[in-house]
Amino acid sequence: MDQILFTTVAELPQQRVYVGYSVYTKKGMLTVIPRPPEFESKSSGAFKVSKEGYVVLQFAPSVGADEPIYDWNHKQTFSLSVSEMGTLIILGARDSWEFSHETVKLKSSKIDVRKVLKVEPLLDATGHLFSLRVLKKPANMEGIQKSIFLPVTRADLEVLRSLFNYIMPYLLGWNAFGNSIKPEVYSQVNSTNPRYGADNEWNR
Amino acid sequence: MDQILFTTVAELPQQRVYVGYSVYTKKGMLTVIPRPPEFESKSSGAFKVSKEGYVVLQFAPSVGADEPIYDWNHKQTFSLSVSEMGTLIILGARDSWEFSHETVKLKSSKIDVRKVLKVEPLLDATGHLFSLRVLKKPANMEGIQKSIFLPVTRADLEVLRSLFNYIMPYLLGWNAFGNSIKPEVYSQVNSTNPRYGADNEWNR
Amino acid sequence: MDQILFTTVAELPQQRVYVGYSVYTKKGMLTVIPRPPEFESKSSGAFKVSKEGYVVLQFAPSVGADEPIYDWNHKQTFSLSVSEMGTLIILGARDSWEFSHETVKLKSSKIDVRKVLKVEPLLDATGHLFSLRVLKKPANMEGIQKSIFLPVTRADLEVLRSLFNYIMPYLLGWNAFGNSIKPEVYSQVNSTNPRYGADNEWNR
Amino acid sequence: MDQILFTTVAELPQQRVYVGYSVYTKKGMLTVIPRPPEFESKSSGAFKVSKEGYVVLQFAPSVGADEPIYDWNHKQTFSLSVSEMGTLIILGARDSWEFSHETVKLKSSKIDVRKVLKVEPLLDATGHLFSLRVLKKPANMEGIQKSIFLPVTRADLEVLRSLFNYIMPYLLGWNAFGNSIKPEVYSQVNSTNPRYGADNEWNR
Repeated sequence: MDQILFTTVAELPQQRVYVGYSVYTKKGMLTVIPRPPEFESKSSGAFKVSKEGYVVLQFAPSVGADEPIYDWNHKQTFSLSVSEMGTLIILGARDSWEFSHETVKLKSSKIDVRKVLKVEPLLDATGHLFSLRVLKKPANMEGIQKSIFLPVTRADLEVLRSLFNYIMPYLLGWNAFGNSIKPEVYSQVNSTNPRYGADNEWNR
Repeated sequence: MDQILFTTVAELPQQRVYVGYSVYTKKGMLTVIPRPPEFESKSSGAFKVSKEGYVVLQFAPSVGADEPIYDWNHKQTFSLSVSEMGTLIILGARDSWEFSHETVKLKSSKIDVRKVLKVEPLLDATGHLFSLRVLKKPANMEGIQKSIFLPVTRADLEVLRSLFNYIMPYLLGWNAFGNSIKPEVYSQVNSTNPRYGADNEWNR
Repeated sequence: MDQILFTTVAELPQQRVYVGYSVYTKKGMLTVIPRPPEFESKSSGAFKVSKEGYVVLQFAPSVGADEPIYDWNHKQTFSLSVSEMGTLIILGARDSWEFSHETVKLKSSKIDVRKVLKVEPLLDATGHLFSLRVLKKPANMEGIQKSIFLPVTRADLEVLRSLFNYIMPYLLGWNAFGNSIKPEVYSQVNSTNPRYGADNEWNR
Repeated sequence: MDQILFTTVAELPQQRVYVGYSVYTKKGMLTVIPRPPEFESKSSGAFKVSKEGYVVLQFAPSVGADEPIYDWNHKQTFSLSVSEMGTLIILGARDSWEFSHETVKLKSSKIDVRKVLKVEPLLDATGHLFSLRVLKKPANMEGIQKSIFLPVTRADLEVLRSLFNYIMPYLLGWNAFGNSIKPEVYSQVNSTNPRYGADNEWNR
């Protein structure tokens, strides 16, 4: 025998999947996209999270007169950290919040970018208005400000809450920790390991 | 030895599982069935969601006089998108909502179908009444309307809420994204990849 | 080469894991144990749920005078269906509920068993009192009634809520459906399959 | 060809992943770290949980004057059981709670350690103040008390709630039970097994 053809159609570890959730309105379109965390391996072979994941809010304005046509050339983005996702989750029907980010986008050209996302109740109480202001200010020049705003219904905000609740543990790598909890791994043979007993203040 | 027969009885990727949740009442039976999303592969080998999943509400009337006998020949269905599931999740004990769908079911026969699902509180506040009106209207003919309604207790609505919360990320493919988050995939070797840094507005 | 030694230490499909959650009180001990659903395979090779899973509440009285000693010889059990779990989840701080089950436990001896689980707020509002009455009534004989009751704090009821929310989709087999959602399975090559389009009333 | 080298780089069962969630404040830094449960195998080959998992709260004070510098040499820890996590989850915006643990940390030196974690609303209602008092008392000596406190915003407390809700089933091993629910394992061939019918009080 000189040749073995061997293929395993197993779960490919490098498979990437792009997902999101879009809210379509006459004013524009909002798409929420999750971004994965990053890990680093320690000398022990264990992994730890080196950078938390987050979600990106993409705002595309509508340029259509009668029905919405979304203009992706003028889209703006705003990234929410896990803690900021918590803020959005607890936002009550009559609550407002302002998220503010200051960044230097292109270091070579020294463009300061300031982004403010304001979330406030709609007057008819059917949801919240998301308004994003982006101010780009090149060195020694006047800033250029762009604004985009669109209404998000209570139902769609609830979908976002549900998605945020789902994805937050993943963005912090807790799913990787959770998946490592297997009976054959953490069986009592290993429980003499003193590390897991040191900070346990009770016995049950 | 000239031949190697090699079979791996691993997790079969094509395994299909049919699930649902049924509410049994004297008036009829409601079954909620999830439908998976569809994906398409991009030239890079990555996947993206091409069609969101949804849930189907199946309504079967009861024809029994003393105890319920469900008549599946006269069942009616109503599909809920993820956003509509959000609407049902936030429905308060005293809230009502009307979902309305207009579809052309059979293009050859040009039958217009209009479906309206109304969800309103029961008078005794023990839950909500789900009433589904289906109007089929063939071209140039009188429409035929069928109605079916049944009460859903607060407890069963809570089970639906819990199931919707669970399944929504799957219907949007976020579980496939979540499952791709593995330390060995997103380790810092890959973090030089500029794509994941471009829309991250802070360092933590 | 004459011999190939080949072993795959994969996830063993028949691994069973027994889990629960216990509430320890002076009056007695309550343990909640989940029971899996059952599936049947259809001729197509697909699976469907043939019997829903549930949780068992085990009540063991305390016979200790100073500190609790739990008497497992006199334990009583009460099983909650998924719908009944929904009832417990929505139970408000001032709400009461009575679950009632009538069963024939041993058909040969014709013993009727009637169980009533009452859940009502504690007077000091720190939680709920769970009281279980079990009446066993052999044919043509007087019944024997046993009662057991114990207080469950608001915090422990919240843990039960969280566990019920987690486990309900599993008890209905929705996790098996969810796990079958993989990009390589539901890619557009399969989307010509008319079954998944028939009850979808919109295009998005 | 005389030799086949065959390696499967599959999911390594012993992979360990360290995760957490950190709240950064001027007063100090709070990091929440989950600890896995332990299992034991029974003679039947099945597993059961022998020790519940928990989360560790790590408090590091800030020694910086202008901007926070966290002093890990003086960090203090407090471990929360699953039931105590339930207490934190239900804590209302105006509620307070005091967790108290008494332990003997080093048996040789007979040092008694008493830890009290108090969680109370901030005056400006933007969140809760976490204050940890640790009293170490060597035999026949005066005790040394250390205190550390830091404010946690409502948003960060919501993230903790979400993480606790996610991880509690894992800390109790319910994920291992859930993962064992597969159609091919619990198909009707096995349903003659009387164990799973004995405590089921209804047929559906």
